[in-house]
Amino acid sequence: MMIRSIFSAAILAVATTFAPTHALAQDTFTLKLAETWGPNFPIFGDATKNMAAMAEKMSNGRLQIRIDSSNKHKAPLGVFDMVRAGQYDMGHSASYYWKGKVPNTLFFTSMPFGMTALEQYAWFYYGDGMDLMQEVYEPLGLKSFPGGNTGVQMGGWFRKEIKSVEDLQGLKMRIPGFAGEVFAEVGVNPTNIAPGELYTALERNTIDAVEWVGPALDLRLGFQQIADYYYTGWHEPATELQFLVNQKVWEELPADLQEILRISMRTAAYDMLIQSQHENAKAWANIKSEYPNVQIKNFPDDVFQAMYKANNKLLAEAAAGDELAAKIIKSQEDYLKDSRAYTDISERAYLNTMGTVE
Amino acid sequence: MMIRSIFSAAILAVATTFAPTHALAQDTFTLKLAETWGPNFPIFGDATKNMAAMAEKMSNGRLQIRIDSSNKHKAPLGVFDMVRAGQYDMGHSASYYWKGKVPNTLFFTSMPFGMTALEQYAWFYYGDGMDLMQEVYEPLGLKSFPGGNTGVQMGGWFRKEIKSVEDLQGLKMRIPGFAGEVFAEVGVNPTNIAPGELYTALERNTIDAVEWVGPALDLRLGFQQIADYYYTGWHEPATELQFLVNQKVWEELPADLQEILRISMRTAAYDMLIQSQHENAKAWANIKSEYPNVQIKNFPDDVFQAMYKANNKLLAEAAAGDELAAKIIKSQEDYLKDSRAYTDISERAYLNTMGTVE
Repeated sequence: MMIRSIFSAAILAVATTFAPTHALAQDTFTLKLAETWGPNFPIFGDATKNMAAMAEKMSNGRLQIRIDSSNKHKAPLGVFDMVRAGQYDMGHSASYYWKGKVPNTLFFTSMPFGMTALEQYAWFYYGDGMDLMQEVYEPLGLKSFPGGNTGVQMGGWFRKEIKSVEDLQGLKMRIPGFAGEVFAEVGVNPTNIAPGELYTALERNTIDAVEWVGPALDLRLGFQQIADYYYTGWHEPATELQFLVNQKVWEELPADLQEILRISMRTAAYDMLIQSQHENAKAWANIKSEYPNVQIKNFPDDVFQAMYKANNKLLAEAAAGDELAAKIIKSQEDYLKDSRAYTDISERAYLNTMGTVE
Repeated sequence: MMIRSIFSAAILAVATTFAPTHALAQDTFTLKLAETWGPNFPIFGDATKNMAAMAEKMSNGRLQIRIDSSNKHKAPLGVFDMVRAGQYDMGHSASYYWKGKVPNTLFFTSMPFGMTALEQYAWFYYGDGMDLMQEVYEPLGLKSFPGGNTGVQMGGWFRKEIKSVEDLQGLKMRIPGFAGEVFAEVGVNPTNIAPGELYTALERNTIDAVEWVGPALDLRLGFQQIADYYYTGWHEPATELQFLVNQKVWEELPADLQEILRISMRTAAYDMLIQSQHENAKAWANIKSEYPNVQIKNFPDDVFQAMYKANNKLLAEAAAGDELAAKIIKSQEDYLKDSRAYTDISERAYLNTMGTVE
């Protein structure tokens, strides 16, 4: 589906006589990208637009990326299959959505009790992360790149305060994926409900709690109007979205456009982390001033300990069944250990100190 | 000093007949960059090399950046003047080095008790930071861009434990710049000593304490061998280096190369933050295992309170004397307030929670 066209200036058409059988530096390439999000979805959708704008401008129009949102392609969670089949050249989504198809894709988004955004980017780019991710995606004919980080996701909106593990028993909560499995281990009844129905489900007590993203995206869904307890995060400390590129499409690009695409994706991903910080801060200030009912809560210690044990148990099961899974889990655990020891004496110590001055 | 040359392919030489008086998309531009650091200086020097490599590859060789380290130009702190005068097209340094020449350059590196790296990038790119920085640099004929972040700098190496403000009285410490002024307000005797002499000065008690950067860069200077107390940071929570570009040079670049340069600088800056996290984590693991004498300490509460008050006093003085300084300080304070409120319920809450599980 990649469209290549010769740049229209007459002067460049002459160039085809020099190297007619190869991709020319002056060719124009148009890549079609399918994103999981709807049109104008904030922050996530800004990352794809930002990436496409950088690529176009840096390439002087030679690399065009056309973005189809989910209203166009009608398959929000079909992005993986469509890029694999070559129906789209690229995708913007999240790796953990594909764990039902390829279990080891789970590890490249965010893990409960795992790395923060800085730690995880360091693992991707200066540790083994990119190599391990490619080990999972290469056999599928795909290249996967970090696609933008949300920062620490909040632990969710609860209508009743959670005072102990007892309070979680049978609690109906919207929380998908691996974190939902961890919650299930400690007694929660995880459910998945379409975003458009979440508010009503929470209001009518069809569910007792809902996990979404963080202040900026949560505010739009209105949970602050009907739930008083906003819990701090543990389950997705650094949710990294994903750019997918069809391997054959990548290989057809000349080296300069490959680098332009690589850097545009990398920068758009970093930018999204920074934009998330900005938008979440604005939204949280808004919630604080307009919804004084909202209280920030940490889960009680016995809940954290139980979830931490449940998480370790599930990871051990994953590692036991699959050599590559074991290698990825070990790489993440080893990296986290050293990286967190440093984060504790730098960022964490600083933030705690600043909490004491006035 | 910018060198422009026509790309040598014969086919492109023809293009000059179409638009002989304008910069052509096919021109090659070579920019000379002076960096404050010596050759092969880790992390800081990697940022310039990374930037230059991206720019060259994305431009297919049309944008070349030649880096001169301080051994070549002999003027580590002359970068500002050399780029202003057009002797160099670009520089890599830090904005606060120029506060003796232009006081308001102080605010674009890191401020005591100020923003973390994520918060500060959000202020630069989604708040007013870039506009305010350009308001300072534009009258100087310069463009200034973020140039790479060290993360939270450590509070320094001390040979004796600091138990109260009393212990700081007359203490001789290497700590330069604004943070040195804050320390002076609480009784410290700040001195500046060339990096090559720091170890010996500390060993011979010419100084009692030394502030440098963080584990990765401190380890090379050997302080862990002669000082037991390593203090957590407060004075430079997110030290951002700087790319400087001569305004006229910038304007001569065609739009695609301007964008390639802008994105290469932006990405290299983000990358340096991530590399700092990686290298500091490795170095701290090394120090912990090989130098068990080293203890991490927070300054006592009365010291923090005294420094916080001293910092606010110095900022109020700066704001009183200069309208633009007042505007920048207010922008930073307002931004920090909302951004930190969110950081406290996300990153800080998560890191503290993780400190409790085992």
